[in-house]
Amino acid sequence: MLRALTKASVPWAPRSRLDCSMASYPLLVRPPDALRRPLHVPSRLLLGPGPSNLQPRVQAAGRLPVIGHMHKEMFQIMDDIKQGIQYVFQTKNALTLAVSGSGHCALETALFNLLEPGDSFLVGVNGIWGQRAAEIGERIGARVHPLLKEPGDCYTLQEVEEGLAQHRPALLFLTHGESSSGVMQPLDGFGELCQRYQCLLLVDAVASLGGVPIYMDQQGIDVLYSGSQKVLNGPPGLSLISFSSKAKYHHTVPVTGLFCLRESLALVVEQGLETCWRQHRLASAYLHSQLQELGLQLFVKDPAIRLHTVTTVAVPPGYSWRDITDYLMDHYSIEITGGLGPSLGKVLRIGLMGCNATQENVDRVAKALREALRRCPQRKL
Amino acid sequence: MLRALTKASVPWAPRSRLDCSMASYPLLVRPPDALRRPLHVPSRLLLGPGPSNLQPRVQAAGRLPVIGHMHKEMFQIMDDIKQGIQYVFQTKNALTLAVSGSGHCALETALFNLLEPGDSFLVGVNGIWGQRAAEIGERIGARVHPLLKEPGDCYTLQEVEEGLAQHRPALLFLTHGESSSGVMQPLDGFGELCQRYQCLLLVDAVASLGGVPIYMDQQGIDVLYSGSQKVLNGPPGLSLISFSSKAKYHHTVPVTGLFCLRESLALVVEQGLETCWRQHRLASAYLHSQLQELGLQLFVKDPAIRLHTVTTVAVPPGYSWRDITDYLMDHYSIEITGGLGPSLGKVLRIGLMGCNATQENVDRVAKALREALRRCPQRKL
Repeated sequence: MLRALTKASVPWAPRSRLDCSMASYPLLVRPPDALRRPLHVPSRLLLGPGPSNLQPRVQAAGRLPVIGHMHKEMFQIMDDIKQGIQYVFQTKNALTLAVSGSGHCALETALFNLLEPGDSFLVGVNGIWGQRAAEIGERIGARVHPLLKEPGDCYTLQEVEEGLAQHRPALLFLTHGESSSGVMQPLDGFGELCQRYQCLLLVDAVASLGGVPIYMDQQGIDVLYSGSQKVLNGPPGLSLISFSSKAKYHHTVPVTGLFCLRESLALVVEQGLETCWRQHRLASAYLHSQLQELGLQLFVKDPAIRLHTVTTVAVPPGYSWRDITDYLMDHYSIEITGGLGPSLGKVLRIGLMGCNATQENVDRVAKALREALRRCPQRKL
Repeated sequence: MLRALTKASVPWAPRSRLDCSMASYPLLVRPPDALRRPLHVPSRLLLGPGPSNLQPRVQAAGRLPVIGHMHKEMFQIMDDIKQGIQYVFQTKNALTLAVSGSGHCALETALFNLLEPGDSFLVGVNGIWGQRAAEIGERIGARVHPLLKEPGDCYTLQEVEEGLAQHRPALLFLTHGESSSGVMQPLDGFGELCQRYQCLLLVDAVASLGGVPIYMDQQGIDVLYSGSQKVLNGPPGLSLISFSSKAKYHHTVPVTGLFCLRESLALVVEQGLETCWRQHRLASAYLHSQLQELGLQLFVKDPAIRLHTVTTVAVPPGYSWRDITDYLMDHYSIEITGGLGPSLGKVLRIGLMGCNATQENVDRVAKALREALRRCPQRKL
């Protein structure tokens, strides 16, 4: 048989009767025409709350060849990533790793490892991420105590202490960068407070990491997670987490995504965290001033708690938010978005993350917004 | 302030006192040197049980720019993927989608949606994937009934019917391509049998899909899942699943991975499933003949149940399997692997998947193996 190899559609395939013996059934589902057309992906400026655009070096990592997930180079890359996460989280925790899944997956990882059925769980619900945490907590069977606040607001130490004293929770959840409302939750003092009440502190930093300061160890955060597709300018699909309890882990890790994440972290290392934070603060300050020049109102009243990575703007009176986001997409290929969860219909969200946090991008989105406000229909109020 | 923008390390940053007001703490974790070194990823021929090498068109999709996960082009791509999965699965199920996670994640997705605590769960355990399914079933609180078999063996209709009659399970799990043992489980008749016993049939086709025939609808498979990094030659991190029950879904989907998966499926569509299957059958037949010329023994005795995508070879007497896999890696940059789970120490595993299933690759691995058998130490028996 080996000698009979000929060049055919499978070039080295012998034409033997064995070829016909495999198919048990006729193929009832035909090859879809949609997959015969070439893949088209447009270029867009992604100024929504994420994903952001890929930084070119990160994008280059995405076209590297795949290697085995158990090769020694892969272990080196995973160790590089661990060190990079320790740096951007500012932690020395040994259990610091990339999770093969979105930020939502990291949240689930955290909650399933921290909560047992019946545990008291105090959740800051001032936006969609707290709602999600509360829902997952319910499913685990925890006694969930939501600390309800309007979107656009954040928590004081006193409010949290009242919750801790009343509910004696095993775990407190807070969102550092509330991307649905544009709020940055101050974190100083909460770790200490939780320690005093023997409660673990879990913080979501998906929309804030790298853009605004966070100090996991110094702020006493027990579990911290974030995503790859925001300030880190990586492709979505991976998240970052650090904690001290035990975990079990084995599957084919997303090798290509890890290359990209490694490069994302390397870029932060090269710039330095302080420079990253400063860039985001300045970018958002410049954006805020440009928005105010357009007569728009920032949704978060207190400047001290405005998230530097995602800016929320009140939908201008008389306008439909979707008209405005559609206008920017259709005429400028710029993504900004409407609200999410509790902020739906109330805000427009503009993200300036990582390499997208530039003066040029602020100018581009401001110009596009100015035009949208002129061109989109305005209902008389 | 806007007028004061100057070119600095953040080019448009004003040098104001605000710049210093952000940092609450000094940075205790310094930027790691590991991330200042360039990323190095070697080129390897991946002839293990997966991941396999990226097909060039799939690799090209990995360097496309990211777009928003809610953009209309993304919905088109996800619809293309759905149609592609329906084709490669040979199913008309509406609930057919890519899962943002590895094949293991798809298995969890299936079991958490199909099993309730207390349900009877019959599991074919003839390798590691059945073991995993049984473990997850235990955690869900199902009454797990393992059908134990030696690795290298598969199930007959009669054996499964005895299990169905005895345990009256809600769900039966079978592995189509048992990558730890190299066994291909025949699937004809099992769907009908399960239907007769009012039991759902869940099949793992991670290591087999696209390489050997499977007909979800005609074979009466209720839930079927597979991975992207095997025959489809995509990057790891996504899986494929189809079932008819209800599911809930929302997070930032791994956009880049979906581009790649779309291209993987497009390639199968272009070739046609029959050609793919034929290519894998011929490649493995050629490999088997080459291995036998080297005096090696195939681990799966019955040729009818040898998996065409992953070939298992008994570790030759007197050799350490690791010496052989190391030799191929160090001298030829070829990955083949040892066993996994119950086949650990017993076998070498050679994968020929998708674009890797070529005569040239068989020749390369056979040449390397011939040399390894000459050069690796052989303990006298």
